[in-house]
Amino acid sequence: MTDLETVLAHVDDNLPSSLETLFDLVRIPSISTDPAYSPHCRKAADFLATYLSGLGFAASVRDTSGHPMVVAHHEGQTADCPHVLFYGHYDVQPVDPLNLWQNDPFDPAIRDGSTGEKIITGRGTSDDKGQLLTFIEALRAFKETKGGLPVRVTILFEGEEESGSPSLQPFLEAHAQELKADFAMVCDTGMWDTQTPAICASLRGLVGEEITIKAASRDLHSGGYGGVAANPLHVLSDIMAGLHDQTGAVTLPGFYDGVEETPPDIKAVWADLEKTQPAFLTDIGLSVPSGEKGRSVLELLWARPTAEINGMSGGYTGKGFKTVIAAEAMAKVSFRLVGKQDPQKIRDSFRAYVTSKLPSDCRVEFQAEGASPAIQLPYDSPILATAKAALSQEWPKPAIVVGGGGSIPIVGSFQSMLGMDSLLVGFSLDDDCVHSPNEKYNLTSFHKGTRSWVRILHGLSDEAINRL
Amino acid sequence: MTDLETVLAHVDDNLPSSLETLFDLVRIPSISTDPAYSPHCRKAADFLATYLSGLGFAASVRDTSGHPMVVAHHEGQTADCPHVLFYGHYDVQPVDPLNLWQNDPFDPAIRDGSTGEKIITGRGTSDDKGQLLTFIEALRAFKETKGGLPVRVTILFEGEEESGSPSLQPFLEAHAQELKADFAMVCDTGMWDTQTPAICASLRGLVGEEITIKAASRDLHSGGYGGVAANPLHVLSDIMAGLHDQTGAVTLPGFYDGVEETPPDIKAVWADLEKTQPAFLTDIGLSVPSGEKGRSVLELLWARPTAEINGMSGGYTGKGFKTVIAAEAMAKVSFRLVGKQDPQKIRDSFRAYVTSKLPSDCRVEFQAEGASPAIQLPYDSPILATAKAALSQEWPKPAIVVGGGGSIPIVGSFQSMLGMDSLLVGFSLDDDCVHSPNEKYNLTSFHKGTRSWVRILHGLSDEAINRL
Repeated sequence: MTDLETVLAHVDDNLPSSLETLFDLVRIPSISTDPAYSPHCRKAADFLATYLSGLGFAASVRDTSGHPMVVAHHEGQTADCPHVLFYGHYDVQPVDPLNLWQNDPFDPAIRDGSTGEKIITGRGTSDDKGQLLTFIEALRAFKETKGGLPVRVTILFEGEEESGSPSLQPFLEAHAQELKADFAMVCDTGMWDTQTPAICASLRGLVGEEITIKAASRDLHSGGYGGVAANPLHVLSDIMAGLHDQTGAVTLPGFYDGVEETPPDIKAVWADLEKTQPAFLTDIGLSVPSGEKGRSVLELLWARPTAEINGMSGGYTGKGFKTVIAAEAMAKVSFRLVGKQDPQKIRDSFRAYVTSKLPSDCRVEFQAEGASPAIQLPYDSPILATAKAALSQEWPKPAIVVGGGGSIPIVGSFQSMLGMDSLLVGFSLDDDCVHSPNEKYNLTSFHKGTRSWVRILHGLSDEAINRL
Repeated sequence: MTDLETVLAHVDDNLPSSLETLFDLVRIPSISTDPAYSPHCRKAADFLATYLSGLGFAASVRDTSGHPMVVAHHEGQTADCPHVLFYGHYDVQPVDPLNLWQNDPFDPAIRDGSTGEKIITGRGTSDDKGQLLTFIEALRAFKETKGGLPVRVTILFEGEEESGSPSLQPFLEAHAQELKADFAMVCDTGMWDTQTPAICASLRGLVGEEITIKAASRDLHSGGYGGVAANPLHVLSDIMAGLHDQTGAVTLPGFYDGVEETPPDIKAVWADLEKTQPAFLTDIGLSVPSGEKGRSVLELLWARPTAEINGMSGGYTGKGFKTVIAAEAMAKVSFRLVGKQDPQKIRDSFRAYVTSKLPSDCRVEFQAEGASPAIQLPYDSPILATAKAALSQEWPKPAIVVGGGGSIPIVGSFQSMLGMDSLLVGFSLDDDCVHSPNEKYNLTSFHKGTRSWVRILHGLSDEAINRL
């Protein structure tokens, strides 16, 4: 039996006790958004700190102005092994409407799923208590079989992820030195399907901008002024319509600077997955991909930037009709960014474009909203290669590299504040009902998820990775 | 002294008693929109019916579900003279805020205006009690000097013009036979300036339409769907932006069918008036005429059709930002019509255009709003020629033919329900403060307005007009 096989066998043998730990954690109703559950949030933090201490971590519960953080440290087996920051969250979503739950959300159990699979039911089993424990239980297996960990590990668990993470940025800022590692690992994402593990290697960034076009000094009657006075809704429509060309590409000068083509092998995998496209769109009542022509749905979502109008208003919008020419009209526009697109340059280009389309007697006001660059774990990263190989050994189908269409704030903060890439691997499934009644986590996700981390951590301890 | 001079001299000699009649009428606070003033509305109707009876009219007050109508009939001097329906309204706007009035709104008096002219102060002096009495007092002058009227006259005064005329259409429908005449005359419009009388020969029609573009079956997160799911705000912006071409012309197929060029002599007059254009736009904070290129502001307002967005909304429009792709987006669009444009054809063409621009997986819902054709008193109408000549004799400067950018519902009803053209002549001035505190009517408007109707009615009784 190799070292790896020993550790994996330990995971298998100790699955019952791993489940007991998960059940104990799920039984704590750590709902972060409801102040009535604050003591339970602290209890969950205490539980995890105690559990990590039991595994040999230097673990502590750290107060914040909201719910506490758990921070824990453990040395790796060698001085020069990689140093990983693992992030998860112990807080959960509220459970109402309670009457839609088939079982008590805080009384977890293993039950039969709809297709005969074993599922672990309860709030937080998937998001994120079950997921974060796959990593911890992998560490325990190393510890209990090898006496140590293959990598140096720092752990950060927060208790406010489901309520906007208000304490996270200040905490990262105050403890940057303590939390800095070679890279971060996050277990809060999903599998492609029950057979296919997925690594999320990219997350799109975002630039938000609100513009207000101002024309006449007051609302006008369209009888008295129609055809003569500038109509800001026309100006705004022209500006919005001009954002895309006939191919669906964004027209702003320099918009595609820093956008790189996705490697052909990744694109090929995505094209294979493309069979899921009809369902993706038909589920929301649509059938034709919008956006850039000639690219797959998955590529559009994960690897291409966008310009979207998120809101628009002006003039009379109530019941009935009013023949008014509005004094002003407003649009909220956001750009999803990929690769190395510079949020500030995108904003500047948009503003210059809007100004260039403005009639000389109209004005525009800009209001900057959020800006964050895209996240990209380089496709040739050894961490990515290691995780991919490890996951592919564990699961029936090879691991795929996916992207995320939206941002995950913590990953952006790790990048911007701590200068770390993040490896996003998780084992939840689309039908896990996270944030909804009847949340569950497949037993397979929990068991093979733990085994997956064993394989990934084992891979990371290899010499090649040590030279990261 | 000619017949005409005799009648005009009578107007001059009897100005004091004409003013007494106006003062008596203005003293009645016939505010139609406030139920507390209902008795006063009836009192004003009674006053007018009694006054008309005193002039030999068969006059009566007719109940409606709102405020009463006054209907009166008088034969002309010959059996084949023209038959005129004269319309006015005895109700007035509310007077609040009362503290902004320099004088009691219902205690009329002759006072000095800001540039030394004599003005009649009080609510309704201009809109419309003073105006309608110019016509009645002209009739009185004929009656008292000639013993009869030069034309057959039917009078219709309503008491709900300032509150939406809810009873008018049913009343016209129920009394179409009784009210039908050769044409209508309305005294509820204004002079171009204190020197220049104006005849309003055209009013733009209107087609209103609300469209709702529907895309996905629910609002979507722009991170998860941006770049793939159709965004109805983009679809709507494209549609709206495509309504006009680079020259400002409306692009709908067939849109300009029935639009005739304004006669060169009329255009030449409007071009002369064009010196007022800068003030017209600068007053509302603008400087550049929008709409069709190469046409004067006045032509654009009075004689050219338009397409305007009156309201538009979709997505998140509150404070801050939400990265949503809306399920639907809405626009309210109206078209101002001129000449013989067919409202239904315009609506059909718009709907076909919208449908043609719709992505195959989006839907559109149409909601028809009002539709009314344009009003056009033919530029070669003998009524128009008579009125123009008569007004030009009375005032320092020749009468001009103008248009109205918006509709006047009663004129549309006369056209559609009674098949009558309307001659719109009035003597109010831009500074009359109608609908505002300190309403006034220039003494000159009242006096020369009465003389103007004498001249017009005299002209209409000529043989050429008898063959209308």
